[in-house]
Amino acid sequence: MKGFAMLGIGKTGWVEKPKPECGPLDAICRPIALAPCTSDVHTVWEGALGDRHDMILGHEAVGEVVEVGGLVKCFKPGDKVIVPAITPDWNSLEAQAGFSMHSGGMLAGWKFSNFKDGVFGELFHVNDADGNLALLPEGMDPGTACMLSDMVPTGFHGVELADIQFGDRVVVVGIGPVGLMAVAGAAIRGASHIYAIGSRPNCVKIAKEYGATDIINYREGDIVEQVMERTGGKGVDRVVIAGGNVDTFTQAINMLKPGGKIGNVNYLGSGDFIKIPRIEWGCGMGHKMVAGGLMPGGRLRMEKLAALVETGRIDPSKLITHRFEGFDKVEEALMLMKDKPRDLIKPVVTIKW
Amino acid sequence: MKGFAMLGIGKTGWVEKPKPECGPLDAICRPIALAPCTSDVHTVWEGALGDRHDMILGHEAVGEVVEVGGLVKCFKPGDKVIVPAITPDWNSLEAQAGFSMHSGGMLAGWKFSNFKDGVFGELFHVNDADGNLALLPEGMDPGTACMLSDMVPTGFHGVELADIQFGDRVVVVGIGPVGLMAVAGAAIRGASHIYAIGSRPNCVKIAKEYGATDIINYREGDIVEQVMERTGGKGVDRVVIAGGNVDTFTQAINMLKPGGKIGNVNYLGSGDFIKIPRIEWGCGMGHKMVAGGLMPGGRLRMEKLAALVETGRIDPSKLITHRFEGFDKVEEALMLMKDKPRDLIKPVVTIKW
Amino acid sequence: MKGFAMLGIGKTGWVEKPKPECGPLDAICRPIALAPCTSDVHTVWEGALGDRHDMILGHEAVGEVVEVGGLVKCFKPGDKVIVPAITPDWNSLEAQAGFSMHSGGMLAGWKFSNFKDGVFGELFHVNDADGNLALLPEGMDPGTACMLSDMVPTGFHGVELADIQFGDRVVVVGIGPVGLMAVAGAAIRGASHIYAIGSRPNCVKIAKEYGATDIINYREGDIVEQVMERTGGKGVDRVVIAGGNVDTFTQAINMLKPGGKIGNVNYLGSGDFIKIPRIEWGCGMGHKMVAGGLMPGGRLRMEKLAALVETGRIDPSKLITHRFEGFDKVEEALMLMKDKPRDLIKPVVTIKW
Amino acid sequence: MKGFAMLGIGKTGWVEKPKPECGPLDAICRPIALAPCTSDVHTVWEGALGDRHDMILGHEAVGEVVEVGGLVKCFKPGDKVIVPAITPDWNSLEAQAGFSMHSGGMLAGWKFSNFKDGVFGELFHVNDADGNLALLPEGMDPGTACMLSDMVPTGFHGVELADIQFGDRVVVVGIGPVGLMAVAGAAIRGASHIYAIGSRPNCVKIAKEYGATDIINYREGDIVEQVMERTGGKGVDRVVIAGGNVDTFTQAINMLKPGGKIGNVNYLGSGDFIKIPRIEWGCGMGHKMVAGGLMPGGRLRMEKLAALVETGRIDPSKLITHRFEGFDKVEEALMLMKDKPRDLIKPVVTIKW
Repeated sequence: MKGFAMLGIGKTGWVEKPKPECGPLDAICRPIALAPCTSDVHTVWEGALGDRHDMILGHEAVGEVVEVGGLVKCFKPGDKVIVPAITPDWNSLEAQAGFSMHSGGMLAGWKFSNFKDGVFGELFHVNDADGNLALLPEGMDPGTACMLSDMVPTGFHGVELADIQFGDRVVVVGIGPVGLMAVAGAAIRGASHIYAIGSRPNCVKIAKEYGATDIINYREGDIVEQVMERTGGKGVDRVVIAGGNVDTFTQAINMLKPGGKIGNVNYLGSGDFIKIPRIEWGCGMGHKMVAGGLMPGGRLRMEKLAALVETGRIDPSKLITHRFEGFDKVEEALMLMKDKPRDLIKPVVTIKW
Repeated sequence: MKGFAMLGIGKTGWVEKPKPECGPLDAICRPIALAPCTSDVHTVWEGALGDRHDMILGHEAVGEVVEVGGLVKCFKPGDKVIVPAITPDWNSLEAQAGFSMHSGGMLAGWKFSNFKDGVFGELFHVNDADGNLALLPEGMDPGTACMLSDMVPTGFHGVELADIQFGDRVVVVGIGPVGLMAVAGAAIRGASHIYAIGSRPNCVKIAKEYGATDIINYREGDIVEQVMERTGGKGVDRVVIAGGNVDTFTQAINMLKPGGKIGNVNYLGSGDFIKIPRIEWGCGMGHKMVAGGLMPGGRLRMEKLAALVETGRIDPSKLITHRFEGFDKVEEALMLMKDKPRDLIKPVVTIKW
Repeated sequence: MKGFAMLGIGKTGWVEKPKPECGPLDAICRPIALAPCTSDVHTVWEGALGDRHDMILGHEAVGEVVEVGGLVKCFKPGDKVIVPAITPDWNSLEAQAGFSMHSGGMLAGWKFSNFKDGVFGELFHVNDADGNLALLPEGMDPGTACMLSDMVPTGFHGVELADIQFGDRVVVVGIGPVGLMAVAGAAIRGASHIYAIGSRPNCVKIAKEYGATDIINYREGDIVEQVMERTGGKGVDRVVIAGGNVDTFTQAINMLKPGGKIGNVNYLGSGDFIKIPRIEWGCGMGHKMVAGGLMPGGRLRMEKLAALVETGRIDPSKLITHRFEGFDKVEEALMLMKDKPRDLIKPVVTIKW
Repeated sequence: MKGFAMLGIGKTGWVEKPKPECGPLDAICRPIALAPCTSDVHTVWEGALGDRHDMILGHEAVGEVVEVGGLVKCFKPGDKVIVPAITPDWNSLEAQAGFSMHSGGMLAGWKFSNFKDGVFGELFHVNDADGNLALLPEGMDPGTACMLSDMVPTGFHGVELADIQFGDRVVVVGIGPVGLMAVAGAAIRGASHIYAIGSRPNCVKIAKEYGATDIINYREGDIVEQVMERTGGKGVDRVVIAGGNVDTFTQAINMLKPGGKIGNVNYLGSGDFIKIPRIEWGCGMGHKMVAGGLMPGGRLRMEKLAALVETGRIDPSKLITHRFEGFDKVEEALMLMKDKPRDLIKPVVTIKW
């Protein structure tokens, strides 16, 4: 079978590989919608995961089941399914402790295009089908559903980590696709004022549609000062970090009230240390909580988030700025993600077999 | 000064009383918006609090500060303020434990028209002004703001007690004004399907506008069966109880998944026992949590909820079906609440002095 | 193979059955320590689970692995293991939601001597060995470890459900083996005063050793009154229910402060309704939370609790009042449990093959 | 009246000041037990709070009430009281949000020897007596009770911030008096293995008595390596930081499992940034939560912790290595704290008037 792969750091190309094998708990799927992710770009061109050879890329997919293992109870060939980017081993000690995304080791619930071939193949393998797949709800557009693999749960996990409460003032740093979903998530988690930090016009437009009350553009001055000004010098209750770098945390602490919380879902690709400013962190005493984590994957999460799409609470289709048709367009979609034209938020490829 | 009072069980009338005294932490306010509550009806005509004589009624108000005590720092005469129905003693042991509404004893954070004269007077007394009043945001309609005294925080507290999470399926029992705000609160707390139980047409209409996905009418069959049918026999994750009686809990347990939670904010006026069905409660083992509580009052809560109105997350003005002008209309508004015409949701009286 | 079974309601006896089959994720174990549970008595003589024929009894065991399935990674034949009474399907939706004990349906994480043969066989089957077994720590007495199957986690889960905080005053209702472990758990969860309700002398003795500060004997007067008297009329912060019946909840509510919590781990075998007294529950408004649930099982829980035994934080061996040697003594141990002599807390059978 | 004061940075001495004034909610107390704190040393000799002139030092006291304001209900002259180091304004927005220690601004719940004169005076002022004082339980040694002002609640708050669960493996960094109380708190919060990091012999001895299972001495090698070795390379579930400096957080992250939590209660007096190592923090994705905060003060906390002493759950008297008699000995006790002889844990001064 064919797959679009990382050939080595900085190099991609189509590879031919044997069809993946299906264990007793597993499923083999054929993709019907695929989306490239900024992580794929980091993996290939920044070597974020280290060197990998001929590893098929991709971890955002909606697929059709073509084979299931003998112990799979809930899925059968022909089922259309949402595939989460994170597919935990649910019986691991980490999952039992509530951290399924770290099953088998820190971040090790992330398997696609990391520990095994990703979803940009004519077929791909899903571990623990019953635990990790979710049926595509009838009538849901596979392209939209593909946003549930990673963009929606990651943005929403930022909201969960920041523990937003009714009426909270919230900063969302970054309004790429994950940040936009964090804005949408904050709005349906009870935030009042949502200060979205970003500048690209189409992202700004969608941030407002998703519930941002204020847009803060770093080109118009220091973002901490802008936030403090808009909050009467008091700062905000919560910060969701979905963009920036290791230095963003310093800003986040500086704009946070005592008792406030930071939820980070931005993958930090470089820098030795996240730096927490001592004085503004109350000399260790300010109750400004710092949390960051990989989104939980798995079936339940997919079902719950799909229900939010079905009931119209969120509309992740607004993220999709570029649509492609046909499996071979995965390459073009990824290159678009790499080149990041100014009007891009998220591309999606739909596939008819 | 004049006030509209409970003269005794089953009797109301206007009384003349001396102006309330202002302690060092307190404020005296003049009402600019008032709303009667079903509790006022229970207090007078069902004797829910026992017999009271010449007690001024009412606990939902927006007012203007006319006097403050010497230790009050944040308010001054002329300030327009939202007055919460619950005005705790914030230094009490109960408040320190997180249960300010029970400061000084179970339910004792509820003082207006309970332990002291209510807000249906030409002047009324507010204990701990700094801790309990909130400035009326500029431009906010006092009638709308008056819904923040009790209807909004009570409905929202049901949502908090039920601990709604992203994608949860939620039943809201009762779509009077509190139930409607529970629907609105569930929608901006992350619920997916919201099954609102009720039948009055204008309540149904607003329930849908507030986010109910399904209306369940008890006249069309057993409500548990209707919920089970719509959830494929699985039941729901959460139930918010904002109507019914002691028997409603049996239904709530029966429609709840194991691991589900019930949040009650309905004042249960009669019956000896709330009955939890043994088998459906998993013989004590089903993790179907039952919580119920008086809403928290106080300034922070008012400010947070007002911010939700300001940012357009909720619109409690939809509750208001009947508007009156002039202090003396309080009587008519209360009688309307007592008679409950079919098109009534909530009356409000605005007052110009 | 031989097993001690329920032949029908009210009847027990030895049966001969084929060796259980081992699926790819499973293990087959030979018991080295077994304990009968009051639930076994309920199952047989009260028909608590309905009629069952030739079902091998027992769900408390320490065993030696004799066979593992092909996908099992962490265990091998010869390993000595603690076997939890509750063995969830970890990839189920319920487990993903944090309620593994209800995997596949309410209480369905409880499989031994319920949905399949129990542990009172020469061999028994464990589903998902990696997810559900824990290595017996070196040097730990198998009889003591056998208390970790059910008595310790059930008592401790009551403490978790009641959410005990530093300095809380706690009532523990019932000082059978589960109640005693709830006392021990409350003491190492931060309770100050622990009021243990019971009367049997050797239970009283051990309750005190485990940390009970007060023993309340129902023969010496109404237990609610006794608790109120000892707390200066204020009541307690938490109640753990590990004994009594459906009426116990009325007492528990009556002795609880507003804001208090009840954690029930007592299996309620009869009665139609748990009754929550309306007035004392604050007419639905008193924030007296009622929770009850089957203990979580699985490997992580066993490892964590075993660590508490290893570090001397708890000593469940004190529960064991009667020790037997030899597999065939299981019958005698169960009969002892049925007859409940006054000096019995918990019998254990150790087995050398 | 006389008081022992900071005259300026690096200078202390006795000052004569007017008797403090008592507001309507306040109390004036005479000290009967006093303890100096390392913070007093930082305040004077490191200028941690900036320059202060003639500010009476001290924030750990047990006292006798000599005067109360007109609105005080629960205390009267002659009452012996425990005085918490943190005395919040309970009606502040921060306290309503659950962060009383930050009432009026970050850390501003800390008033003694910070925003006003401390407790090392012949008389001292307590704001909000009803909210902040607790009766000294009958028979409790005032010196021991004086440990409840700061040492016990601070150590225990570290345990709360780290959110220790049954069976957790916990590192406590630092075994000065706060760290020792964190060890004691971890033990009665359900920790299994407690790895206490420190080296001074008498602290080591008491750490073991309080429940430390392992002592880790930084002189015997890298502490992260020692912890990893003792945990089979897995790391720990929780870290409580009660010593060290801004670099300690790097070590704490490195010894923590994904999903682990850090609770800091160490005042960080120098350094620009707390540094979180990017890779070991899972590139922002590892769910290693970082929390740090000033201990909550107030009456309820004092009462709850006093109940733990009364019931023998903790014995803070073991902290006291040096006892003095007489008000004028406060100077000597403070100098001892400054000089930190090797056998010092905590001095206390008791006073008879």
